[in-house]
Amino acid sequence: MLEKKTHLNLLYDFYHSLLTDKQRQYMELYYYDDLSLGEIAEEFQVSRQAVYEHLKRAEELLHKYESQLQLVAKYEQRQQLLKRMGAILEESSPDLEELKRLVSALKNVD
Amino acid sequence: MLEKKTHLNLLYDFYHSLLTDKQRQYMELYYYDDLSLGEIAEEFQVSRQAVYEHLKRAEELLHKYESQLQLVAKYEQRQQLLKRMGAILEESSPDLEELKRLVSALKNVD
Repeated sequence: MLEKKTHLNLLYDFYHSLLTDKQRQYMELYYYDDLSLGEIAEEFQVSRQAVYEHLKRAEELLHKYESQLQLVAKYEQRQQLLKRMGAILEESSPDLEELKRLVSALKNVD
Repeated sequence: MLEKKTHLNLLYDFYHSLLTDKQRQYMELYYYDDLSLGEIAEEFQVSRQAVYEHLKRAEELLHKYESQLQLVAKYEQRQQLLKRMGAILEESSPDLEELKRLVSALKNVD
């Protein structure tokens, strides 16, 4: 899967509840079910251009929400800290002071 | 501070970026600076009713966003898990297995 598509998937995971039903429907058919614009247009009896405009608007909204809320960025930041904690806990003598620092750091990533 | 106000503060912290400038302005004056509806109305040369409507709409939006995104609920869930981790790390012989379980649990709270 392309990097761009992966990032868009994450944006969709976090913000799809803020989209309209139609935007969600088209995005799922286009990105998850891999239908073409033409196939979606045919299924909904609308023009290919109309489908394209809905998808474009939906993607713009996802990027706008991320610029406002930063949920994906914070999620990735937390996952990175947690991965590090998991690795420390697997060591034979886990560094408890570092774990404490990581817990503090995580408390600050809302 | 009242419980309701505290929860509203949290909602505001998480979602204020999705409000309009005017909604943010009125909310900050009313809740943070503790101005009355009348005082805000006077400052902006609008009716008391107009201020009330903006505040009401803003609060409705904050609740709507929380019902859609659950950011405050997830935040509180994470803080609770982290508090527990912090407490375990303060023990003389921290329970590493429980810490591992908590790290896994935290990874699932997006």
